[in-house]
Amino acid sequence: MSGIEGFHAVIPAGGAGTRLWPLSRTGRPKFLVDMLGSGRTLLQGTVDRLLPLTGPDRLMVVTGRAHRDEVVRQVPELVDGELDQVLAEPSPRDSMAAIGLAAAVLAQRHGPETVLGSFAADHVVDNQDIFERTVAEAVAAAHAGYVVTVGIKAAGPSTAFGYIAEGDQLGVAGAPTARHVTTFTEKPDADTAWTYLATGRYCWNAGMFVVAAGVLLDHLHTQLPTLHDGLRQLAAAWDTPQRDAVLDAVWPTLTRIAIDHAIAEPVAANGGVAVIPGLFGWDDVGDFDSLAALLGAGDPDGPGGDPPRSATLGDDDLVLRIDADDAFVVTTGRAVTVVGLDEAVIVDTPDALLVTTRAHAQKVKTAVDAWRARGATSLL
Amino acid sequence: MSGIEGFHAVIPAGGAGTRLWPLSRTGRPKFLVDMLGSGRTLLQGTVDRLLPLTGPDRLMVVTGRAHRDEVVRQVPELVDGELDQVLAEPSPRDSMAAIGLAAAVLAQRHGPETVLGSFAADHVVDNQDIFERTVAEAVAAAHAGYVVTVGIKAAGPSTAFGYIAEGDQLGVAGAPTARHVTTFTEKPDADTAWTYLATGRYCWNAGMFVVAAGVLLDHLHTQLPTLHDGLRQLAAAWDTPQRDAVLDAVWPTLTRIAIDHAIAEPVAANGGVAVIPGLFGWDDVGDFDSLAALLGAGDPDGPGGDPPRSATLGDDDLVLRIDADDAFVVTTGRAVTVVGLDEAVIVDTPDALLVTTRAHAQKVKTAVDAWRARGATSLL
Repeated sequence: MSGIEGFHAVIPAGGAGTRLWPLSRTGRPKFLVDMLGSGRTLLQGTVDRLLPLTGPDRLMVVTGRAHRDEVVRQVPELVDGELDQVLAEPSPRDSMAAIGLAAAVLAQRHGPETVLGSFAADHVVDNQDIFERTVAEAVAAAHAGYVVTVGIKAAGPSTAFGYIAEGDQLGVAGAPTARHVTTFTEKPDADTAWTYLATGRYCWNAGMFVVAAGVLLDHLHTQLPTLHDGLRQLAAAWDTPQRDAVLDAVWPTLTRIAIDHAIAEPVAANGGVAVIPGLFGWDDVGDFDSLAALLGAGDPDGPGGDPPRSATLGDDDLVLRIDADDAFVVTTGRAVTVVGLDEAVIVDTPDALLVTTRAHAQKVKTAVDAWRARGATSLL
Repeated sequence: MSGIEGFHAVIPAGGAGTRLWPLSRTGRPKFLVDMLGSGRTLLQGTVDRLLPLTGPDRLMVVTGRAHRDEVVRQVPELVDGELDQVLAEPSPRDSMAAIGLAAAVLAQRHGPETVLGSFAADHVVDNQDIFERTVAEAVAAAHAGYVVTVGIKAAGPSTAFGYIAEGDQLGVAGAPTARHVTTFTEKPDADTAWTYLATGRYCWNAGMFVVAAGVLLDHLHTQLPTLHDGLRQLAAAWDTPQRDAVLDAVWPTLTRIAIDHAIAEPVAANGGVAVIPGLFGWDDVGDFDSLAALLGAGDPDGPGGDPPRSATLGDDDLVLRIDADDAFVVTTGRAVTVVGLDEAVIVDTPDALLVTTRAHAQKVKTAVDAWRARGATSLL
């Protein structure tokens, strides 16, 4: 396939990834890191996945100023064309400002009918074919005026994701699997997650949104007019010599809000949001438990399976496991020996070592907070 | 006190200490390492403990040729005098050859009545006063012709040590607490160890022997005449230009045997061995469990005690513990973060990292074997 006509992909590349510290650092967050040992960073993997849908001219990254140079180094094709496709934010202003800026710039450059899809820079997908067909359906529904999300089939009652409740079929040509979204819910507790799963009508919110630029900006105009006006003002100046001056004046005034709260939730309540079930493999590489599983650690038949599988990020010849077959080890050059620790997670970097377990993966974030509180800024 | 008249201390400084890898290495075994973070290596600590009993002229170290230079660097007073007090073995020949060589050289230099005491280079003792009084009793019993050992009051049914069974009181002047030894036993299984403890007549064999040089050599002449003759030949040549030639010729022929098997067991059976109870604190720093306890890790009131105590070897400011208060960490300069691992042992050295638990401390040895089997000689 030679892409989806007129479709633009936007990759918001932000977030600290503190649950993947010390692999992910403030200066080099997880999307800039080769987290899977594949030879490509998560950002490059995301670009590789979207390029077949867009080609290099219809792909845009929105990132922080501090990361722009590295983004350009990793994805040089984004600055090869006539227009600069790496938008740099002076400071983090949450996902609505990032995606809204992209939408406003695309509307300015290509007109309000332009359909854009937003896909996080640090997720992984494992079936390209299904992914492409899903996005194509989403684009069809977006052309019909909907804000479209892709819902991930829940693999279990996770409390790490928000959930999307599916309603009736949408009935739009080119989007046979599309349904209305009745509600978006925040990350639930475990009991609520079980209840959702039991209904069979909930899927995970992976933060993928596909929408016409003009439709998104109109919703924003209704919900948050000041934010809308600021983004329009920025877009008008973007490809002119006034860009930096307007950015300096306007950017700090923008409301910090997630696109889910700003658009998805209120518009869903009015029937304006659709969902396409995403039946491809998906992972947000959220923490070391998730990363270990992605790299094959542990046993697919559950604890005690024989033999458990090992996973190493780095040179496995440097790793020795004794009574710890399923220990997940990240090494950047030193010999690592693990004796007698099941489900261990060991992340060895040149200046910082983390030792934890897969069950404690979500707590790694608190370690970053604690080092920050100690003033150890070089470790962050 | 100005020492015990005529008493010589001998420190056999050998053993690989593989259960303390990667702190202890082939090229720098544990006795050459500052294992307690005290600023003194275990060898230096042993010398510090013995010097008040002997002064620098009556202290001798027997070590491997590869370690002689480092021993001299750490304890320069041993080569300051007229006679060289660092005996270097061309190859390891077990404890009987090491102590027997020292005894033969001392008999040659100072006469057969010379009483020597042998104390391992890598043990720690925590009450100097009681230690000195114990050794003084042992020397008194040695002057009466006994092979004298110091028995450590068993702190529990350890399976890591051999045991000494005490018999009747010895009745020798100057050694009021001395008893006969009825038997030496090898490291027992746990049930046997419990049985020993229940009798109240067993103590741990810490490998400390005090004996007149002539008595030791006479026993050796009876038990292992060839070994005896070889050691006498070496001693006769030691302080002459022929030392190296005789070493090259004789050393490789010496029987490899531990002093326990060569002398202590058979002589005990004939009533010739005495034991002085050693009521000082003692530890053989045998593995990371033992080292962690020595450095205060864990809670004295048992698991779940609040708060458990932390122990760090190295700069504790580099260590962050979250839900892992009692994790034992060795750091040589990197930041170490432990999240959610009770009883963890983390040993971070510049080229090798070990992660294990206190319960697996004895298994660390197998990691060294495994790296050797992989040919990773630089790590050993």
